[in-house]
Amino acid sequence: MKARNYIALILISICFFACAQTHPSMILTKSGVETIRSQKNPLIFDEVLNKTRIQVDAAIAEGIVVPVPKDMGGGYTHEKHKSNYFNMQSAGALYQITGEEKYALYIKNMLLEYTALYPSLPPHPTNRSYAVGKIFWQCLNDANWMVYTSQAYDAIYNYLTQEERNTIENDFLKPYADYLSIENPKYFNRVHNHSTWGNAAVGMMALAMDDDALLQRALYGLDLKNVDELAKDNDGGFIYEKDKAKAGFFAQIDYSFSPDGYYGEGPYYQRYAMLPFMVFAQALNNKKPELKIFEYRDSILIKAVKSLLNQTNQSEEFFPINDAQKGMSIYPNSVITAVNVAYNASPEAEFLFAAKKQGEVLLDQGGWNLARAIESSNSLDFEKKSIQFSDGYKGDEGGLGILRAGNSDRQSTVVFKYTSQGLGHGHYDKLGYLFYDCSTEVMQDYGAARWVNIDQKGGGRYLKENKTWAKQTIAHNTLVVDQKSHFGGIYDVANLHHSDPVFFNTNNPQAHAAGAKEVNAYEGIEMNRILILWEDDYFSNPVLIDYFSADTDGAHSFDMPYHFAGQIMSQNFDYATQVPTVMGYAHGYQHLYQEATAKAEDVIQMNWFKDRKFYTLTTQSNAGDDIILARIGANDPQFNLRRDALLIHRKEGATSPRFLSVIENHGTYSYVSERPIDPYSKINKVAILRDNNTSVTFRIQVKDGMSWDIEVDKATGEVKIVKN
Amino acid sequence: MKARNYIALILISICFFACAQTHPSMILTKSGVETIRSQKNPLIFDEVLNKTRIQVDAAIAEGIVVPVPKDMGGGYTHEKHKSNYFNMQSAGALYQITGEEKYALYIKNMLLEYTALYPSLPPHPTNRSYAVGKIFWQCLNDANWMVYTSQAYDAIYNYLTQEERNTIENDFLKPYADYLSIENPKYFNRVHNHSTWGNAAVGMMALAMDDDALLQRALYGLDLKNVDELAKDNDGGFIYEKDKAKAGFFAQIDYSFSPDGYYGEGPYYQRYAMLPFMVFAQALNNKKPELKIFEYRDSILIKAVKSLLNQTNQSEEFFPINDAQKGMSIYPNSVITAVNVAYNASPEAEFLFAAKKQGEVLLDQGGWNLARAIESSNSLDFEKKSIQFSDGYKGDEGGLGILRAGNSDRQSTVVFKYTSQGLGHGHYDKLGYLFYDCSTEVMQDYGAARWVNIDQKGGGRYLKENKTWAKQTIAHNTLVVDQKSHFGGIYDVANLHHSDPVFFNTNNPQAHAAGAKEVNAYEGIEMNRILILWEDDYFSNPVLIDYFSADTDGAHSFDMPYHFAGQIMSQNFDYATQVPTVMGYAHGYQHLYQEATAKAEDVIQMNWFKDRKFYTLTTQSNAGDDIILARIGANDPQFNLRRDALLIHRKEGATSPRFLSVIENHGTYSYVSERPIDPYSKINKVAILRDNNTSVTFRIQVKDGMSWDIEVDKATGEVKIVKN
Repeated sequence: MKARNYIALILISICFFACAQTHPSMILTKSGVETIRSQKNPLIFDEVLNKTRIQVDAAIAEGIVVPVPKDMGGGYTHEKHKSNYFNMQSAGALYQITGEEKYALYIKNMLLEYTALYPSLPPHPTNRSYAVGKIFWQCLNDANWMVYTSQAYDAIYNYLTQEERNTIENDFLKPYADYLSIENPKYFNRVHNHSTWGNAAVGMMALAMDDDALLQRALYGLDLKNVDELAKDNDGGFIYEKDKAKAGFFAQIDYSFSPDGYYGEGPYYQRYAMLPFMVFAQALNNKKPELKIFEYRDSILIKAVKSLLNQTNQSEEFFPINDAQKGMSIYPNSVITAVNVAYNASPEAEFLFAAKKQGEVLLDQGGWNLARAIESSNSLDFEKKSIQFSDGYKGDEGGLGILRAGNSDRQSTVVFKYTSQGLGHGHYDKLGYLFYDCSTEVMQDYGAARWVNIDQKGGGRYLKENKTWAKQTIAHNTLVVDQKSHFGGIYDVANLHHSDPVFFNTNNPQAHAAGAKEVNAYEGIEMNRILILWEDDYFSNPVLIDYFSADTDGAHSFDMPYHFAGQIMSQNFDYATQVPTVMGYAHGYQHLYQEATAKAEDVIQMNWFKDRKFYTLTTQSNAGDDIILARIGANDPQFNLRRDALLIHRKEGATSPRFLSVIENHGTYSYVSERPIDPYSKINKVAILRDNNTSVTFRIQVKDGMSWDIEVDKATGEVKIVKN
Repeated sequence: MKARNYIALILISICFFACAQTHPSMILTKSGVETIRSQKNPLIFDEVLNKTRIQVDAAIAEGIVVPVPKDMGGGYTHEKHKSNYFNMQSAGALYQITGEEKYALYIKNMLLEYTALYPSLPPHPTNRSYAVGKIFWQCLNDANWMVYTSQAYDAIYNYLTQEERNTIENDFLKPYADYLSIENPKYFNRVHNHSTWGNAAVGMMALAMDDDALLQRALYGLDLKNVDELAKDNDGGFIYEKDKAKAGFFAQIDYSFSPDGYYGEGPYYQRYAMLPFMVFAQALNNKKPELKIFEYRDSILIKAVKSLLNQTNQSEEFFPINDAQKGMSIYPNSVITAVNVAYNASPEAEFLFAAKKQGEVLLDQGGWNLARAIESSNSLDFEKKSIQFSDGYKGDEGGLGILRAGNSDRQSTVVFKYTSQGLGHGHYDKLGYLFYDCSTEVMQDYGAARWVNIDQKGGGRYLKENKTWAKQTIAHNTLVVDQKSHFGGIYDVANLHHSDPVFFNTNNPQAHAAGAKEVNAYEGIEMNRILILWEDDYFSNPVLIDYFSADTDGAHSFDMPYHFAGQIMSQNFDYATQVPTVMGYAHGYQHLYQEATAKAEDVIQMNWFKDRKFYTLTTQSNAGDDIILARIGANDPQFNLRRDALLIHRKEGATSPRFLSVIENHGTYSYVSERPIDPYSKINKVAILRDNNTSVTFRIQVKDGMSWDIEVDKATGEVKIVKN
């Protein structure tokens, strides 16, 4: 034997020894497992452990099934492979925590089945994706598989023989990782949430296999020659400039978030995207601590989770801005995972608060730590505060302002949207807002026209009404000029622009204010909006003051919609109801029925009922302004839309109109006591008292005779309130 | 001193001594108070005690205010007098339980204020009721006052001097009781829930004052000469035959309930009426045990409370049959009181179950006992069962059938209505049904068109749409012939008739069945309906089978409405949507918009989504039958109606039509996991296989190829099921 062979043998031995020592080393770690095994589990951790045992024991009892891929989402093979990866990941954790061999054996046998199948697999037969997967219909799902399975592989790495590892890696895992990267550059090498999964999948499998070259590929992307042809694909991803990592995990981190952690597509998409970010980061932090991944870009991943958790109403449901199905919240597994990882990287109160709400932890050392922290903090009183998030990866593409007031029992929340377009999932809703009273949508955003995964409704995909209604400006609480959407509803134009914050001022504890402007949505029109969430003991709940001004170069028709979506109780105008007529032909108006019309005097007031509560809108008007009571649902040939009500305040042939509106949350009702409490508004009238270049002053007059003058500095948002 | 004077003196002394011993003696008793004081309170009792203390202490701190009556309900003087009687009753209980004099003093001073005011009071100045009160706008509220205050008076009876009692009784309480009885015979001397309050008020005050003559008046009514003029009043009460007590509390008991305890106006009205029944009965039971009031009429009061508690869905909300606001439940004080009294008279599992749900008890010995029972029964597993209630005081005026199946997590409930008209609050809904999945209304009853106590909506009273829509037949899940309501929608005709039960059969544990017929609703038409709640392991939840047959002497137009009130997901017919058109001019059709129409083949199938669950209707049809997708809301000039969706299956020019419909509760959806489970129906087709004089057989065929033949005996309701 030659010397170099000896050296090789020694190196292999060292490697073997070293490797043997460093598994598990990704999410679970050797020392983490030791800590868990050596102490009494916190209660929540034990609950998760037992639940997981029951689930995996059932899967083991059912036997291993690795079917030849055939179906799309919802179909048998798809769902089977999906449960396989969940079960493998869980079994890996159980093997490490309990030491029971059956869990390791289950993973080994499963992986060997996949290894036997894989070499014969062509791309998925459905051929329905821009990036067709192998086991699934799209690479995205294959990446999901790999993110989970890499953890299982890491967990049983030392349980496998070198020969078994060689077989599994060479015949299956390495070619599979190549397939998701080298063979699908359009999928792997762009900045997009799908690709984040791809990067994390390949990267985590690289870590599990101790394959540093593969890891580099995951972190920094493929070195491609023909970048141009990838610059835009059919799903909105893109490649950024050359001066930064042009693709790969670091590029995702660099470009997916604003410096405040805001994710351009909004929280509905972010909650899904955060999982690969956080899980891969956790793995990197354990195995490559020298990367200091959680500190990277000024701790952007931690900020991103905070941003996500802040974009919620009082029931922890995400604001349904952009394309979003309402009801999604901090409770799915992806957010539980993000919170677990974030808490362990940075143990802050808001992560602990979220974890307590979630009531669930991961089966790893981090989850164990978090469970213990939950147990030992009996009365965590975390309260979400007013906060602004910049948009754009440089933080210069507008932003999202969140105003909060009230107490933890009944919090009012205003979401003010002056972001960029939000890529392909964005809506034409510049300067739009949502207003919540607890989790009641006082002024709603329609959300997406989609029933996610519900096959009956277009296979669970976006419905055509998403484009024709839900994205259109009139579907939002913001100004529509000449019955046309912002940017004419043209994505390529909208995508070039963003609104701009003017101020976000919380200096006055009684009146947090946000101001923003939009100069591109309509040619020749500058739109400004100021929103103030005002608290005064005179009112039972915070009051929203909304001032919208449009400076125009000529006369237009202006529609200000109020999406109250409740039951009208009373109003100060005489309306005439009618058999519904369709309000228009395009820009969303083709989906609106006109149900009643009225002419305004100098103030429009309407009181309505929703979720056992009473609300009142009071808005300044000019005599003769039109009031239209409308309802969604026209031209809806498949009953895809909800029949929600809205009010439209229309100014025809107006120049530079101003809209001053005040919304009160004033009353409640119980079906048990049948007693309404404060069913009527206290406000009598609202008016713009003064408006000049530097400030605007509103007068709010109540029925009791008093009034308040509320002056806002147009540059700083400083609010001064005088009671008369 | 003559002998007779001596005897009189002795008698007075005995009476004084005896009376001194027998207070409190109505709801609280001397021995009850001793029991409570001598033992440690159960937790729930202590909670109520503390809550009541806080409330009454605050009232005492505020001071006594007895304003001159002026306002109607909602107004200041009305609400003040109302809180006065609540606070006095609570203070009485506190005085007895805690022994603290301040509570007795509060009541004494309050009563002296009322006594000073009363002699100067004319009837209430509003003059808006058929029976104007003194302190309130109607005698009903005055009776409420007296029911509560009598308890307070009883509690401090021995605290007062004889002189104080004389003043209070002679200057105030006795004339007041006369006012509510002798001076308002039309109010006091009829069978009606308002009058039950009157009888209880006078009777309880009589007990508190030990005035036996007054008590007799309360129990047996006034002995009137001119009965005829009272035979019908403007609020639907009436006087019954001479052979029974013609008025008074016993007459209320005799005529208000069927022998099964069903209350003709339905549970929404019963829950309010039960309070005076049960509180007065409790007082009588304590003070006049020889009346054996709880055993009277075969324990009808106990049965009545059971009947009330059974008429609830899984969230303990009452079925909104007849005029009823949805959401009313077992949780208001009136039902808590009824349950407390009933449990102490007859400690049965269903009362304990209700009390545990309510989580609240009365501040008396009964409440104390109930609280202890709640504490010591850790896992009471009471389950509501299928049950039928006869209607009419003799039990021969139709009835209400309740079918239940499923488990306590997800129970299916069918409410089948073949009652009498239900007096002035009845709807034209013969053989109609409601179908619940948990508390989700799978097939809804609209309920009342009313916003109770909400001033904005017609002062909180019944709206005109209650008559023009909510009462009409098309607003219910039952057959409409020639687009006209049952009995032409004429109350005086409807009130003469009732439907008849044919069978109520729960012998087959897999298929409880109810059958009923109606021969008077339409001239020349006999209508029969059979409802079966069928359980089979093949289906995830119980399935409702609905067979409606009409035997006619000629051709008519038949509309079978399905009030699904959800979002249509898919269907087996091609429909064309349209701009809404109004469907008719009368009988409720003037409130319906036609949104889409279709022609049926041999089966109509529609799948919808509601409350995160999926449902499917499969109904047999003839090719060419019309399908109309409609929505409530036409001719609704004040937006009083909800915009709920329904499907109408129309057979034009048909003779003796049959409708066989099957409804599946089959799927669920989570906005967190975004995974639909069983979103599609399993059924392929339903058909009437055989139909003869003695039985009818339905075939239900599923997509998997199997079928079931379900044979029902038309006389007995015996169900035989054969699986093919």
